[in-house]
Order: sequence, then structure tokens, then C-alpha cells
Amino acid sequence: MTHKMSSRLIAEFLGTFVLVFGGCGAAIFSAKVISTNTINMGIGFLGVALAFGLTVLVMVYAVGYISGGHFNPAVTFGAALAGRVEWKAVPAYMITQVVGASLAGLALFAIASGKDGFSAVESGFASNGYGDRSPDGYSLVSALLVEIILTAVFLYVILGATDKRAPLGFAGLAIGLCLTLIHLIAIPVTNTSVNPARSLGVAWFAGPEALGQVWLFILAPLVGAGIAGITYPMLFASPVVEKAMAAKAKRK
Amino acid sequence: MTHKMSSRLIAEFLGTFVLVFGGCGAAIFSAKVISTNTINMGIGFLGVALAFGLTVLVMVYAVGYISGGHFNPAVTFGAALAGRVEWKAVPAYMITQVVGASLAGLALFAIASGKDGFSAVESGFASNGYGDRSPDGYSLVSALLVEIILTAVFLYVILGATDKRAPLGFAGLAIGLCLTLIHLIAIPVTNTSVNPARSLGVAWFAGPEALGQVWLFILAPLVGAGIAGITYPMLFASPVVEKAMAAKAKRK
Amino acid sequence: MTHKMSSRLIAEFLGTFVLVFGGCGAAIFSAKVISTNTINMGIGFLGVALAFGLTVLVMVYAVGYISGGHFNPAVTFGAALAGRVEWKAVPAYMITQVVGASLAGLALFAIASGKDGFSAVESGFASNGYGDRSPDGYSLVSALLVEIILTAVFLYVILGATDKRAPLGFAGLAIGLCLTLIHLIAIPVTNTSVNPARSLGVAWFAGPEALGQVWLFILAPLVGAGIAGITYPMLFASPVVEKAMAAKAKRK
Amino acid sequence: MTHKMSSRLIAEFLGTFVLVFGGCGAAIFSAKVISTNTINMGIGFLGVALAFGLTVLVMVYAVGYISGGHFNPAVTFGAALAGRVEWKAVPAYMITQVVGASLAGLALFAIASGKDGFSAVESGFASNGYGDRSPDGYSLVSALLVEIILTAVFLYVILGATDKRAPLGFAGLAIGLCLTLIHLIAIPVTNTSVNPARSLGVAWFAGPEALGQVWLFILAPLVGAGIAGITYPMLFASPVVEKAMAAKAKRK
Repeated sequence: MTHKMSSRLIAEFLGTFVLVFGGCGAAIFSAKVISTNTINMGIGFLGVALAFGLTVLVMVYAVGYISGGHFNPAVTFGAALAGRVEWKAVPAYMITQVVGASLAGLALFAIASGKDGFSAVESGFASNGYGDRSPDGYSLVSALLVEIILTAVFLYVILGATDKRAPLGFAGLAIGLCLTLIHLIAIPVTNTSVNPARSLGVAWFAGPEALGQVWLFILAPLVGAGIAGITYPMLFASPVVEKAMAAKAKRK
Repeated sequence: MTHKMSSRLIAEFLGTFVLVFGGCGAAIFSAKVISTNTINMGIGFLGVALAFGLTVLVMVYAVGYISGGHFNPAVTFGAALAGRVEWKAVPAYMITQVVGASLAGLALFAIASGKDGFSAVESGFASNGYGDRSPDGYSLVSALLVEIILTAVFLYVILGATDKRAPLGFAGLAIGLCLTLIHLIAIPVTNTSVNPARSLGVAWFAGPEALGQVWLFILAPLVGAGIAGITYPMLFASPVVEKAMAAKAKRK
Repeated sequence: MTHKMSSRLIAEFLGTFVLVFGGCGAAIFSAKVISTNTINMGIGFLGVALAFGLTVLVMVYAVGYISGGHFNPAVTFGAALAGRVEWKAVPAYMITQVVGASLAGLALFAIASGKDGFSAVESGFASNGYGDRSPDGYSLVSALLVEIILTAVFLYVILGATDKRAPLGFAGLAIGLCLTLIHLIAIPVTNTSVNPARSLGVAWFAGPEALGQVWLFILAPLVGAGIAGITYPMLFASPVVEKAMAAKAKRK
Repeated sequence: MTHKMSSRLIAEFLGTFVLVFGGCGAAIFSAKVISTNTINMGIGFLGVALAFGLTVLVMVYAVGYISGGHFNPAVTFGAALAGRVEWKAVPAYMITQVVGASLAGLALFAIASGKDGFSAVESGFASNGYGDRSPDGYSLVSALLVEIILTAVFLYVILGATDKRAPLGFAGLAIGLCLTLIHLIAIPVTNTSVNPARSLGVAWFAGPEALGQVWLFILAPLVGAGIAGITYPMLFASPVVEKAMAAKAKRK
């Protein structure tokens, strides 16, 4: 099933919008809501991790069959390296993702501004960071390591779960919950990016210090995705299976 | 598979009853249960978000194949606009949903009254609100924005996940977890509606101030659902696919 | 696919053992684990709700195709009323479920006794209760109402999700997560039963007061399951569908 | 579909790496993140339980069709006993799993060292323990019991959910969420192993006391897996079904 490029870009726009509006929105509005007697009724890092994963899970089922459901320039890059998306679509995909993420950031900013005393810069606005901007004080090297490793894992899961050999239909579940897993690990380290569009989408609003660190959250995810995108076809191609598939494809 | 209208309405009644009994019930009974030394053993906003999503997830698998599994007048409205349900069924669907939701509110009121010191008005009874009735103090404009955007997202996910191109069987999972996601974002802003029946079902019991704000939670979800219901067919229709489907349908 | 009665009973034994060992075990060991500075590292009611649901979810996929995956005398009763299991199997199923649940209670007692200062009676040992034994102080009437309503909902979901019209394979997911939903609502009211075997399995160890209240958690689930088991076939039978199915069955 | 042994071992390496990096990483980085006013924004035992389960869930969908998705020497042992994997593959599988787990431990150590004041020995580094090293003070006997019982349950679920009679594709969901369930029960008792590779992978870094207790977390999971691996074929084989399958297999 081939879809028109316009439909594919609209799907990527919508998916990345929901990813940032949902994931960062949950972090901004709901992570910490202190009630009387110092109890947090909010969802904490666990709820934020769930929210990020669910954005991808639901949007893969909603529009993934149209665009492939990347919602992330690093995923598009890794998928292109692995031969899953044509290179000529890559620039339009990436630009669309950043635009969708940034409009989601703007919508969140508008809503958050309806609360007295809100400040995007002071609250961090769900931006990513390392060193003194790391939620729990991790260094630049730790941030690089965790973002590279986790983006590589993310791509292995995406490429594996959408492999023709994998059980049909479960990819959205596996990929979405993989993003939840990634956030369960890395929120205290970097606030978790693995997605340059997600990082940029809120960094515009979070002040110059956040913008000054955003390079790491563009570079590291692309490196991690690159490692997985290049190595996946080498590591897991099975001559037996490939032949059988080629034969099967011929018959059609 | 066509089902009798009576079966369809019973399915919608049961589904909307469970949505309000389960989602609002979790909020009323379980969100905050303080044990000694000021620890909340309750489920917090995260658990309430999970409960709302699970009501829809389980009822879509239980009766969704009978009625379509709307359980929400805004969903019925959006689905009608997108051509997924016949317009003549819409009024009966909506009335049934509001009746189911209200009876669930009544059941919750009866059970909650079995606890000493319970007051529906003072506790809020899981009603929706903005301004001074917003759980974390968000304005009317923020409430409007978040409810419109999230209902539109909800409808895109519903229409996309039940599209003939989507993987079969996963729609209940995607739609239910989308409602969880929506609550993870918006409970602090409006206590999350995206569903006029859910809002009305408990507002009857929550006092005149709650009832005085309920208009927003009828209007905004309908607007959001309307936007998605009208634009979905334009944005994602694929001529190639549509033609193939039309051809396939002819052959049957 | 017909299985031998011995395999079916072993499946019910194992499933009910896991339900009580897992659900009540999570409540006993993990709900509240206070670290320094009065923070609960434990899983709270939310984690207990998740644990109960996951026991059923995983055991339905593991052995549900052998026995039907009831793990609960109320479910067996409702399924028999709805014509889903033969009446002559009911007594053996119920006895096996209570035996499995009670052995799980014994295993939990043995493990819990390995912690200094453990007392099953003082801790409650995950037993169900109402009035002064309700976790958050709800009356006998509230307990009756919530257990009847939620067991009826549970049975509607079970009968609906395993209906031939429902999407194949998703029943375990829907049924397990329905049990999670039920616990998200009712732990503060009764500690949640909807399952006489689960209630009995731990009541033996929780002292005479717990045993003195266990009648409600046998009666109410059976009433709720009875209501759903009798009404489901009336409410949702579709002549059109039934005829088509009968015709289809004939052709085989 | 037969895959090359090299691809299978790479899949096991990657899966076990993700299991330890994800599960233990969530425990080390995210379980406890204290914000001002003594609120834990971290994910607690509930989030750690979810993380462990999700590692297996996502990796089964990503590479499970290549290697069987064991990621655990006890699972490989039980699967071999039940005739699901050839005995000659067992040593290579087990060595690969321990290597993958240990490299994940090393990666976690490197990242954790980027935080001021980190000490693997003092923090425990997500190692397993009993007695004075049990998170909530459970004895050696309790630890043995819980690890044996839960590994046996884990294997019954794995063998059952991957049985030819089970619904296709759902095994990854059931197996992953079973590991979440296991952690919801046993983190306070032993920090939960059921997996010798996971225990070894972090024990190298957690000091001599942790290493001195690791024998139990090799022995008990193997015993539990052995019980299930031997008894599963006896308990659940159905002559009727087996015959039908044999006949079906012949026809192919």
C-alpha cells in the first residue's frame, strides 16, 4: 500500500505533535501536583514515561500504516540506513517532524501560561539537559552514553518489530512500550530525548541555557540510530529466511 | 455484521456506565487514601488515568463489535461526521450514553455515601472544572484549548485505529490507552473530560458550581471531535487505497 | 479442541494459585515498603491492582486455552449460566480453584514468616473486609454494592471478549486488565474480591474477624456473576449474527 | 524458520543486554529521585517492575523470532528440558547471556559514575540479596522459596504462551508482563532475580557481600525452571490435541 507523500507528511506531523504535546505535556502539567500535607498527587517520572510511550503506541496504530510512524528524525535516519524508507523522503520527514514538535511546544506554552506564576525557563519546560541541567546531576559523558545506547536500542526494537518475520500488528505495542522503557531509565540522567524533534520542540521556550545544550540531543540520537541502522541488516539477516521471502515475493 | 439497534444501545449504555463507574469511581474512592505518616497508598492521578483508559479498552473488546464502542457523545458526533455511523442513530446513542453515565454517577453516590463524612460537593465527586475549580488552577482558556486539542487527537486515533488499513484487533488497545494518555496530560488542568456524558454523569451530584461549568465540557469535546471528524477523511484518504477497497468491495 | 478434565483442572489450579500468590503476594510484600525519610518505595494500591490483573492476563495466555481460564468460582458460575462451560464440570472447577488459592495463601504465609515481626492477623494478610475491616471505612452496604456491580461488569467483559464475534486473541488482555480496573476502583472499599477463592485463600490465615466477613465475598461475587451470566445471552444475542454463525457451523 | 547460530547468539546477547541495562538501569537511576520537600519523583518499585517486564516484552518482539527470546540461563535450561530448544545450543546461549548481562552492568557503571558521590557498593547497584541484604529483611529460606516458585511460574507462562495451541503473537506480551508481575511480588524479598545472568551482570560491581550471595540467584532460578520444564509436558499434553497436530504436521 503506497500512500501519497502529502498524507505521509501529515501523518508524521500529527504523530510528532502528539508525541511532544502528550509526553512533554504530561511532564509539564502532571509530573508534580502537590496537595495539602506535601503529597504528590501527580504522575511522577513513571507517569511521564508511560505518557511518552503511549503517544507513540497510539499514533503508530492511528497513522503508522500511512507514514511508517517515525515521529522522530533519528528514527527516520536509522530507517533510511536500514533501507526501510527511501532517502529522498528523509529531508521532508525531518522538517515536518521538527515543525510538528515545535507547534506542540507552542500549544503547551499557551496552555501552561493559563496558570498563575508559570515560567517556562524556571520550570525547565520538559527540556533535556546534562551537567547542572540534568534532573539528577549526571555529567555530559553520562548523557552522551545513555542517549546513544538507548537510541540504538530503540532502533533495534523498531527495525526488529517491523521486520517481516515478526508477529503482525504488535509493532506499535513494542515500539511504544520501548519508549516508555527508555524514559524509565533515563529521565533522571537527561530528562530523556532519543529524539531531536522532541528536544527542539520545547527548547525554544526553555531559555538560552536549554538551547545551548540541545546539540547533544541532536547528535547523540543520530549517532545511536546510525549504529543500529547500519548494523541491524548485518547482524540479523538470515540467508535462509531471506531466500524464502524472495521466493515468496516472486510468486505474488 | 449488523446488530439490532436495541443491542447496540444496550452496548453503549453498558460501556458508558463502566466508563464513569470505573474512571470516576477510581478517582473518588482510590486517588487519595492517606495512611499513617502521611503516605498516600492511593493510586494518584496516574492510577485514575489508567482506570479511565482501561474502562474503554475492556468495553471495546467486550461490546465494541456490537455498537462501535463510542461510550461518548463527542465520539459519536465525530464518527458520524467521518461517515462511520449513520446520522439517524446519533440521537439515540447520545441519550443512551448520558443515561448510562448518570446511572453510574448515582451508583457511585450510593457507594460513596457508605463512608462517614462523605460529601459529593466538598470532594468534587470527580467533576470537571476550570479556573478556581481546575485541580491545579488553570484558566478557562487553557481548559478550552486542552479539551479541544485532546478530543481532536482522541478522534484521530479512533478513526485511524479503526480504519480498514490498520492492523486488525488492536483498535481497542490503541483507543483505550489514548484515553489514559489524555488523562495523564489533562487531569491537573480540567480533571479531564473529552466526554460530555462523563462530565454530566457526575456533575448532577457535585453541586451548582460544578453544573455551572459543565457547558465547557459539552462544547469543547464536540468542537474537537468535529474538527477531527471533518478533516480526517480529507487528510488521510489515499486514492490508491480507496480505489483498491472500492474494487474489493464490489467483488463481494 | 477438547482437553482432558485432568489437564483442565491442573490449569485451573495453577491459574488460581498464581492469582492469589501474585495478587495477594504483591499486596502483602510490596504495597508499603517505607524507606528513610518516610517515603513509600512500595507499589501502593496501583501496583497491587496491576499485579492482580497481570496474574489473570498471563495465565489466560499460558493455560486459558486448556481450561477456559476462569481461576474464580464466580466466573465459573457465570460462564455456566451463559452456556460457556458444562454444568457437570462446575463443582470440580470450584473445588480446584479454592484448593489452589489456599495453597497459594500457605506459600505466602511461609515466605512472609521469614521477616521479623510478621503477623498475618495484624497485617490483614490481604484479606477482604467491610465496615471496620474496610481499608478506607466503607459500610457493609457499600461493600455489597461494589462487589456485585464489579463482578457483573467482570463477567460481561469475559463473556463479551470471548464471544465468537470479538477479535481473536485479545480476550486475555481485556479480561486481565479488567481485573486491574476493578482493583483500581474497589481496593479502598473492600480490598477487592470479585472472587470467592481469592478471598478464602488468604482468610484462613488472617484471623477469625476476617473469616467472619468472608461470607460477603462469596455471596456478592456469585450474585454479580449470576446477573451477568443470565442477562448476557438475552441482551447481546443478535439473530442476524446467530443465524450466520449457525449456517457457517453447518457448512463445516 | 531456522536462523544461523550466530544470529541467534547476537539476539540473545542484545536481549540480555537490554534486560539488565533497562531493568537494573531503571532501578539504579530512577527508583528514588528525591525532590525538595521529601517527595520521591522517582519510579519506585512499581516503575522498576514495569521496566524489567518491558525489556523482555520489547526484545521478544524485536528478536524473539530469531533466538526464541530467552535472555536468561534459567529459561534456556527449562526450555531445553521441555524440548523447546536443542541441548547443544544451551552452553553457548548461557555464556552469551552472562556476557551480555555483564557488559550491560559495565555500561551502567560507567554512566552512574558520572554522578557525584556514586558508589556501586553502597547503593547496592541493583544486586540481589537475602537476609541483611534483602531490601525488606526477608530470610534465606524466604528468598529460596520465592525465587523457586516465581521462576517455575515464569517458565509455565513461557511454555504455555509459546505453545502451538496459544493465540499467535501474544507470547511476548504475556511473558514480558509476567516478569513485571514477578517483580511486583518479590522486589522487597530479594530485589527479584529469577535470572542468573541478571544477578551476575551487576554483582561484579556491587562488592564482595553481593557476590557472596549470588549463588542463591543461580541455584534457585535453575531449580524453579527445572521443575516447570520437566512437569509442563506431563501436565498439559493433550492426547487429542497432540494427535491432531501430528496429523496436521504430516500433511504439510
